[in-house]
Amino acid sequence: MISFTCDYNEGAHPAILDALVRTNFSQQPGYGADAYTEQAKARIREAVGCPGAEVFLLTGGTQTNSTVIATMLRDYQGVVAAQTGHIAVHEAGAVEYTGHKVLTLPQHEGKMDAGELAAYLEAFYADGAYEHMVFPGMVYISFPTEYGTLYSKAELQAIREVCQRYSLPLFVDGARLGYGLMSPACDLTLQELSRLCDVFTIGGTKVGALCGEAVVFPAGKAPEHFFTMVKQHGALLAKGRLLGIQFDTLFTDGLYLKIAKGAIDLAMQLKALFVGKGYELFLDSPTNQQFIILTEEAAAALEGKVAYEVWERLPDGRSVTRFATSWASTAEQLSQLAALLP
Amino acid sequence: MISFTCDYNEGAHPAILDALVRTNFSQQPGYGADAYTEQAKARIREAVGCPGAEVFLLTGGTQTNSTVIATMLRDYQGVVAAQTGHIAVHEAGAVEYTGHKVLTLPQHEGKMDAGELAAYLEAFYADGAYEHMVFPGMVYISFPTEYGTLYSKAELQAIREVCQRYSLPLFVDGARLGYGLMSPACDLTLQELSRLCDVFTIGGTKVGALCGEAVVFPAGKAPEHFFTMVKQHGALLAKGRLLGIQFDTLFTDGLYLKIAKGAIDLAMQLKALFVGKGYELFLDSPTNQQFIILTEEAAAALEGKVAYEVWERLPDGRSVTRFATSWASTAEQLSQLAALLP
Amino acid sequence: MISFTCDYNEGAHPAILDALVRTNFSQQPGYGADAYTEQAKARIREAVGCPGAEVFLLTGGTQTNSTVIATMLRDYQGVVAAQTGHIAVHEAGAVEYTGHKVLTLPQHEGKMDAGELAAYLEAFYADGAYEHMVFPGMVYISFPTEYGTLYSKAELQAIREVCQRYSLPLFVDGARLGYGLMSPACDLTLQELSRLCDVFTIGGTKVGALCGEAVVFPAGKAPEHFFTMVKQHGALLAKGRLLGIQFDTLFTDGLYLKIAKGAIDLAMQLKALFVGKGYELFLDSPTNQQFIILTEEAAAALEGKVAYEVWERLPDGRSVTRFATSWASTAEQLSQLAALLP
Amino acid sequence: MISFTCDYNEGAHPAILDALVRTNFSQQPGYGADAYTEQAKARIREAVGCPGAEVFLLTGGTQTNSTVIATMLRDYQGVVAAQTGHIAVHEAGAVEYTGHKVLTLPQHEGKMDAGELAAYLEAFYADGAYEHMVFPGMVYISFPTEYGTLYSKAELQAIREVCQRYSLPLFVDGARLGYGLMSPACDLTLQELSRLCDVFTIGGTKVGALCGEAVVFPAGKAPEHFFTMVKQHGALLAKGRLLGIQFDTLFTDGLYLKIAKGAIDLAMQLKALFVGKGYELFLDSPTNQQFIILTEEAAAALEGKVAYEVWERLPDGRSVTRFATSWASTAEQLSQLAALLP
Repeated sequence: MISFTCDYNEGAHPAILDALVRTNFSQQPGYGADAYTEQAKARIREAVGCPGAEVFLLTGGTQTNSTVIATMLRDYQGVVAAQTGHIAVHEAGAVEYTGHKVLTLPQHEGKMDAGELAAYLEAFYADGAYEHMVFPGMVYISFPTEYGTLYSKAELQAIREVCQRYSLPLFVDGARLGYGLMSPACDLTLQELSRLCDVFTIGGTKVGALCGEAVVFPAGKAPEHFFTMVKQHGALLAKGRLLGIQFDTLFTDGLYLKIAKGAIDLAMQLKALFVGKGYELFLDSPTNQQFIILTEEAAAALEGKVAYEVWERLPDGRSVTRFATSWASTAEQLSQLAALLP
Repeated sequence: MISFTCDYNEGAHPAILDALVRTNFSQQPGYGADAYTEQAKARIREAVGCPGAEVFLLTGGTQTNSTVIATMLRDYQGVVAAQTGHIAVHEAGAVEYTGHKVLTLPQHEGKMDAGELAAYLEAFYADGAYEHMVFPGMVYISFPTEYGTLYSKAELQAIREVCQRYSLPLFVDGARLGYGLMSPACDLTLQELSRLCDVFTIGGTKVGALCGEAVVFPAGKAPEHFFTMVKQHGALLAKGRLLGIQFDTLFTDGLYLKIAKGAIDLAMQLKALFVGKGYELFLDSPTNQQFIILTEEAAAALEGKVAYEVWERLPDGRSVTRFATSWASTAEQLSQLAALLP
Repeated sequence: MISFTCDYNEGAHPAILDALVRTNFSQQPGYGADAYTEQAKARIREAVGCPGAEVFLLTGGTQTNSTVIATMLRDYQGVVAAQTGHIAVHEAGAVEYTGHKVLTLPQHEGKMDAGELAAYLEAFYADGAYEHMVFPGMVYISFPTEYGTLYSKAELQAIREVCQRYSLPLFVDGARLGYGLMSPACDLTLQELSRLCDVFTIGGTKVGALCGEAVVFPAGKAPEHFFTMVKQHGALLAKGRLLGIQFDTLFTDGLYLKIAKGAIDLAMQLKALFVGKGYELFLDSPTNQQFIILTEEAAAALEGKVAYEVWERLPDGRSVTRFATSWASTAEQLSQLAALLP
Repeated sequence: MISFTCDYNEGAHPAILDALVRTNFSQQPGYGADAYTEQAKARIREAVGCPGAEVFLLTGGTQTNSTVIATMLRDYQGVVAAQTGHIAVHEAGAVEYTGHKVLTLPQHEGKMDAGELAAYLEAFYADGAYEHMVFPGMVYISFPTEYGTLYSKAELQAIREVCQRYSLPLFVDGARLGYGLMSPACDLTLQELSRLCDVFTIGGTKVGALCGEAVVFPAGKAPEHFFTMVKQHGALLAKGRLLGIQFDTLFTDGLYLKIAKGAIDLAMQLKALFVGKGYELFLDSPTNQQFIILTEEAAAALEGKVAYEVWERLPDGRSVTRFATSWASTAEQLSQLAALLP
């Protein structure tokens, strides 16, 4: 059985395992003070084009989101997100657990609209009772979104401008960042993205690492004593080298974007395969998550042979499904799918 | 330069790296539902001798401690610990961050005294104002302690009895559990330990893993929806296989205790080396952390060649130091130290 | 200038002030152990018709809501409320500050719909990823709602049934309870309400007290050590007598409902006055808060003479306004308004 | 039976009740925007001699402490207190509930020692692992202390200097401030105290009010959006007038200090009475709380006629007791005690 259920079904890119093996007995200090982490940070700073960037390596996505958000907000503030934002739905209330509200705006194929953000902020401060309400304290968007969609440069700039007007930091959750940047629909580079937000993450877990999310403060304005608060959130690895080695590898010779590109190429072929056979798309995703409306016949044909995620059963018997490719997907897997698909 | 600064200076036991390489492309579900995690849990249940035990695999020590403690306490309760307990000092207030007080008792070479615990609890409920105070809600001890010392079976039983008298769950932090169990001074087996507490951890990070702590509820009484709360604490790995593979390996053919034994043997030799040359021990640790009072002459001789941790400078110029061995320490490293030591 | 801006513009009902003066030098124990508090609780138990009810007296509404909700929820749970629920909007994130999410449902003139609640709960448990989400842990409704509307007995029963099906406690925020019960549209008695929920509050602040909300657990199932958690939330008054005397007075000879009735009678007259003069209602409220669409002409006529709250300016120049009567409102004030209103 | 158990046994000073009655029907805005609160704040600013002071009126002591501390600390910080500090012992973990650790220092008759504070801070920053620990973020002392003792001006200045060296705000909990300032042993004025700390409270509850603590930021540096956070902590009264009227009354014609002086005079007479009859003092308190070692004979004589608080039973049958006078204590009560005391 082959699986397209998600982009974290396999272990790590072989180059990462090689590096773990190669460096295994080098004695290094703990908690991220090791040489590999230093080098990884230097490489990330170069890749994002921000020599003054502060970079921290954490383990997982929910952990990273709640740590970044909790440490950047003041007590009276909440974080603004699209109602489908990962932090608003699928992180078990991790943000609220730190004492902060997630303030939600409507979503449009997973995206927040700059105009609606501006309208919300204007209305907030126009409300006579706003001092009795949770203040918007930062804006969270995901790139790509939970629906695989992307903000164009213009859309991101528009959100950025609204944020700046209200002095709100903009946080871009890049759990699948590589897959976004390598999409044919993406008109942004990593460097441009870095200049359009205050903090963002470079997801490792879903793009070739065993675990790991890099948090980047492009302008170098991490919250004071962020290290201590990472520890307080249970997000500090004793063997920081595990993260350092992985990101060092991913940011050597452009491996991160290279393997993301492979996944995107396969995703586009996968989409073409479904469309070519007449399947309807739930939405036209430009990244590695493809949302296909699968017929009962197709579901039966794939049963026990190809795994994917079912999002919703439609009344007509069809299902909204997600097929995800990843850095580990192969052309052969796609051929197998093609051969099975009615 | 060789380092005895801590037991997390190297990567992982080679068998773990082998297993990661070997399993790398097996497609597995995320969040701990993979086959390796299942197998690791089964092996741990067998090793601890509790077929009904519930086992969870988390990433790091502070994370595990705060997640276990926060999910087992009710809001009005705190956790009782020795004043040198890791949670009381070196976890950046992670427990308090979840809203709970760490209630401290005196320490005796890092250990809590059952009599003092009983006296504290008796005094608490005798105090007319106790309803205005934080209720003791569980007891935390570390095994070995932060000073490398161990509770004897009798001492642990005594603490256990006090806990039961007051219906307090007993939590044993086993970040260095293997080194405790393999100490010549230890009169407890893993199975016995399991029957003497309500929850304990089996530390992987310091005993051969890249990361990972196993949380064991021997009687199977994990807090309801513990999985969701692990996620809420940012402690759920998407690629749970990383933890599953490691603990599966460590609990195959007794590897965990075997490599801990190696570290202990070297630690005893290291202690003998220092004692033989006339150095004073700060305290007589039976585990892999050795606390040596180093002369200025010795410090000068080791300078730049052997690394260790300095805990305190004494007025006479000597220093209280910690030399830690680990699963990765070698006889050769010890010989080099012996050759250098005046 | 006369004010209809809210129902907490004045001090307290004179009977309360009399009682404060009369009892002033009686020496009483603190923290709610005084004789007045005991008597107040007994009277409330009688009024609600639940001899086994547990009653606690707290100071303010937001405080009471966040204390009740935080102490009844487990860490993995949130509270379900209509999106206009006071806790969801106007309590500065007090619930989230305690670590819990407010899960919102659509509102219908401020009310939650039982069918929508059932549909949400069904969908929640049908979602394959629900263990990654915040569990619904209790249901919060306000009676009257923030829009002055009321649940009928049938509507409340329907919500109650859904709650029971999912073992969710039902919390009724009665900050303006008296005004709800005395409404001509109300088909519920206080005793009936008590049997239809697990916890509710009897608001004093807006119904004749200087401060104070009574929390009633009709079936006597207050969270364990609720007293200590009230203290922990900063909600325990040293001079609990202040609350005891007030509720004792309000629940002597039916004063609470009597003065609420007076406010409702005036509110109905006020509504009739506006409707009679051709003003449009924003919504037809059956309680002491009346939502009137005021013309510019009317606004000009009342300027500087009658105060009210403006909720929203309409594009046509008119405003959505709130006129609230209270236990302190007088027929004379209404006459003055009538005389001024064009 | 007469009671000396505490200083919150009675209601309020009659002038306060008069003012409540007199102002009762004046219509005022809520949430502290009323004219009485404005006037109270102005009077307090004048009394403390800081025209730029920011003043907030909250309801109770634990509430005020946890709100002030939580809003002034950053997430990585804790508050330093003597181990007998009220926040460390008798506030049900309210500070920890907000996520912050109480870092304790030894106490000397309830007081913190400036030298020990300095030594702790020096050691903290000298510790190589301090980034893994809770940072000291502010210093809390009580004046008078929980043992009725007072800091001299020199002692307070010494603590202040240490705080300034480490940029730590100094918070003085003045729950019994009046009784401290009126003590014959006090060499500080209210104005001087104001210049020696960053924030302090003026306790109303124990000095003549029904409830209420004034929080004073002498230099006007309240945390940003303190109002909203007061609401978030459940500490904002809808009828802020209740607090405004009380503090307005207490700070008119020096009533606050005048009634505190009366209590102190009686406390000194009470102490003289005991000492004169040969009773031992547990400690020599200069304020309204007197700690007497009572013989069994005396206890028997007072049984059922005079109430006081028992702190501890001594092995010899005697008890450590607390007798508190207050603004409401009378010379007649003292005479009754004198007549009964063997």
